[in-house]
Amino acid sequence: MNQAYVELERRFAALDALKGAQAVLSWDREVMMPGGAAASRAEQLAALGQVCHARIADPELADLLDAAEQDTAKLDDWQAANLAHMRRTWRHETALDARLVEALSRAQSRSIEAWSSARPAADFSAFLPAFQEIVVLSREAAAAKAAALGKAPWDALLDAYEDSLTGEQIDALFDRLATALPPIRDRAMAAQAARPAPLQPKGPFPAERQKNLGERLMALAGFDFGHGRLDTSAHPFTGGVFGDVRITTRFDEHDFTSSVMAVMHETGHALYEQGRPADWAAQPVGEAANMTMHESQSLLVEMQAARSPQFLAFAAPIIAQELGGQGPAFRADNLHALATRVAPGCIRVDADELHYPFHIVLRTRLERALIAGDLAPADLPGAWNEAMAELVGVTPPDDRLGCLQDIHWPIGAFGYFPTYTLGALAAAQLFAAATAQDGDILPGLERGDFAPLLTWLRHNIHRHGARQSTQELLIAATGAPLSTQAFEAHLARRYLD
Amino acid sequence: MNQAYVELERRFAALDALKGAQAVLSWDREVMMPGGAAASRAEQLAALGQVCHARIADPELADLLDAAEQDTAKLDDWQAANLAHMRRTWRHETALDARLVEALSRAQSRSIEAWSSARPAADFSAFLPAFQEIVVLSREAAAAKAAALGKAPWDALLDAYEDSLTGEQIDALFDRLATALPPIRDRAMAAQAARPAPLQPKGPFPAERQKNLGERLMALAGFDFGHGRLDTSAHPFTGGVFGDVRITTRFDEHDFTSSVMAVMHETGHALYEQGRPADWAAQPVGEAANMTMHESQSLLVEMQAARSPQFLAFAAPIIAQELGGQGPAFRADNLHALATRVAPGCIRVDADELHYPFHIVLRTRLERALIAGDLAPADLPGAWNEAMAELVGVTPPDDRLGCLQDIHWPIGAFGYFPTYTLGALAAAQLFAAATAQDGDILPGLERGDFAPLLTWLRHNIHRHGARQSTQELLIAATGAPLSTQAFEAHLARRYLD
Repeated sequence: MNQAYVELERRFAALDALKGAQAVLSWDREVMMPGGAAASRAEQLAALGQVCHARIADPELADLLDAAEQDTAKLDDWQAANLAHMRRTWRHETALDARLVEALSRAQSRSIEAWSSARPAADFSAFLPAFQEIVVLSREAAAAKAAALGKAPWDALLDAYEDSLTGEQIDALFDRLATALPPIRDRAMAAQAARPAPLQPKGPFPAERQKNLGERLMALAGFDFGHGRLDTSAHPFTGGVFGDVRITTRFDEHDFTSSVMAVMHETGHALYEQGRPADWAAQPVGEAANMTMHESQSLLVEMQAARSPQFLAFAAPIIAQELGGQGPAFRADNLHALATRVAPGCIRVDADELHYPFHIVLRTRLERALIAGDLAPADLPGAWNEAMAELVGVTPPDDRLGCLQDIHWPIGAFGYFPTYTLGALAAAQLFAAATAQDGDILPGLERGDFAPLLTWLRHNIHRHGARQSTQELLIAATGAPLSTQAFEAHLARRYLD
Repeated sequence: MNQAYVELERRFAALDALKGAQAVLSWDREVMMPGGAAASRAEQLAALGQVCHARIADPELADLLDAAEQDTAKLDDWQAANLAHMRRTWRHETALDARLVEALSRAQSRSIEAWSSARPAADFSAFLPAFQEIVVLSREAAAAKAAALGKAPWDALLDAYEDSLTGEQIDALFDRLATALPPIRDRAMAAQAARPAPLQPKGPFPAERQKNLGERLMALAGFDFGHGRLDTSAHPFTGGVFGDVRITTRFDEHDFTSSVMAVMHETGHALYEQGRPADWAAQPVGEAANMTMHESQSLLVEMQAARSPQFLAFAAPIIAQELGGQGPAFRADNLHALATRVAPGCIRVDADELHYPFHIVLRTRLERALIAGDLAPADLPGAWNEAMAELVGVTPPDDRLGCLQDIHWPIGAFGYFPTYTLGALAAAQLFAAATAQDGDILPGLERGDFAPLLTWLRHNIHRHGARQSTQELLIAATGAPLSTQAFEAHLARRYLD
């Protein structure tokens, strides 16, 4: 018996409960909380954050990690992987000294405030001082994490979201996309222009009916409502904890398609959370592998499954029934045309799957340059607009629609953006392997039965938690490491055939 | 500067944030949480409870209390009262040794489980073993708290809910009620029998419309929706934190009166919470004074104000409008007759204000005997039924409608029951003083304007937080300590005039 390891499990289980409390309170803030409660909620979350940090930074925990690592022969595979994740959590949490943590926290508060007012005003200069401070401190944090993790600085920031890929590997994948995608996109848009435009279903579609529709589709996909909910928030997200997975969407009464697809996207995240290994759910190794795999699950359900002609053939009459719609606008082929429209634009979150990768390639290149010190914060708008023109073919009319659109950098979340597109690549690769391995998956979608797909995902991805990395999971499930091949094939099949 | 006191304020503010997190998670459990999440929520609340307990039991905190108490000359009145409440919190939290805390916690879990299945089956014998354990441990706890607080054992349990009254004083008040109320009740029921029965408005009244009505009445009463919400739960309660006060109700589609009055009751609790002193809201002295005063505020708004002929004259057309009702059943006099119906019954929570005190007198007498060791748990059903027959004039047909009806004792909450009726006495005493001091309060209710009443309550009760006790607040606001006089006068006026 490795006593130190046993004690570590006990401590990390308590930590998981406290982080679960944070998660529910964060969900409540976005979904339920009255506006006047922002200050008291911030106090609650800060107090919990301090408790969690203190428990990880506790010198006793470091001693326990050292002791447990002396005696790994007594650990099974899950335990050994769990111990490695504990160490990684500890490294991330203790890499920054107290002064830097405090400085970053204050800078983030200032930066969010400055961004919140600068964005609607499209006033980058008003955001710049706070942004410069965030970049300086994030570069310091990158250096500290680089030392702690033995990685390059930007890679060390990425590590919090994806730990099995390097900046160089991501550059190679993204350079390939920047070359391979424009021809597909151009041909897809030309083909689309040659067809009649899809019909826009005429609303209004009351939020309550859209919600009923969303819940019906979630149930079809395998969402367990005994352990989760659907609610409304300003931006769709997946929150809550294992055993209580809460997704949100927003309703546009004049366009139900955005809400339906947001629900399916978050359902993909939720199925991953609901499928984590129950025996390890409160331990680091029982968490989702990382953000690449998380995004792969949401995009697999949304982009690969829900936007497929197979599923839309089944769903069209359900959508019409739940929303009280009728006529050609609600026919499966029209809904599929709506779900696969392609159009360039300035805003990432509105981008279709053919344009989305360009937004991510742009951000990844720019943030790597910012962290390397090769791009000065003041030069961001120019660099952004130049890259947009080159990659997407549009130039933002102002910085609100340009470099001020996302909250990620204002909160100091460098290293996160690439996982959106890495997830898209993984989704395509997993879906191709799944449908090749189980011939009932596509016919299943055609009869509204996600069970064959979900069974494959549970077996190949969900049940492994964080025991394997992105690359390990992909190699085991698909026979190959992450590549752009399946994604390119998917786009060509969907948009060019 | 009393440095120890300053550090105590810092620590108690952090504790308030953690307890706030618990409060929001507890609200969520009753209102939002999917059924399958019970286990993970219990882990979260237990982990938070351990953090809070450890912070109060921290030997450093005891040293700080000692040091701060050496130097009270430097504290102003609020600070001195705050320090006294910190000490009282510490005494309650540290009075029981770790073994007893653990034993109580386990016994409560077993007892709640046993009670939950024994109650629907009306099977007291199935509950008895767990109940015996709870009583034994609660007597131990009473002895330990008695030593820590310098009070009699049952008084020491009462102290957690009401600290300015003794068991003897409560016995005297309740003996007076047991003598004074039966003649009023008998005459009220005779008078009621001589009148035609009120008309029952014909439903169904959809929950959504009842909720809109509830929110409209809450707004009239002064509830601040920027800092609170109304939701639905199995049992109405007031939860949340300062700045985020959340009340709940339940809707019977065939009887809106119960929901309307439950909303007004919880609104009374909520107005107290929303009116606590903002500068001290995160400190012990800024909390509500105690449960007697809390119940006085809910009963004042419900029983004194909302069930008054003045308010119902104003509210009747609003109720009819919001519920789409019409005809004589929605006339003010009929709604008032419905709101003041009197009928004996076995169940406390269904009792009218003339019968409710008997239920509390019974429980108080029996739990004092249980804690004193004068009543054996096994003898509870007999003692209960005998007292019901004597006080209320009915004999429960089984223990489900008798001694198994309440959750208080199964969770070990001895000392809580009396505050319901102490609150009713205080409500009548405060309302009589308020209407005597401000001649615009009753005319205000008649025009749907709670502002004069709320101003009086804010000034005389809410803004003082816990700086003054029940007796101090009542003497300052009404010129006399708590008595049954105003309550008796109120009942005679309402039911006999």
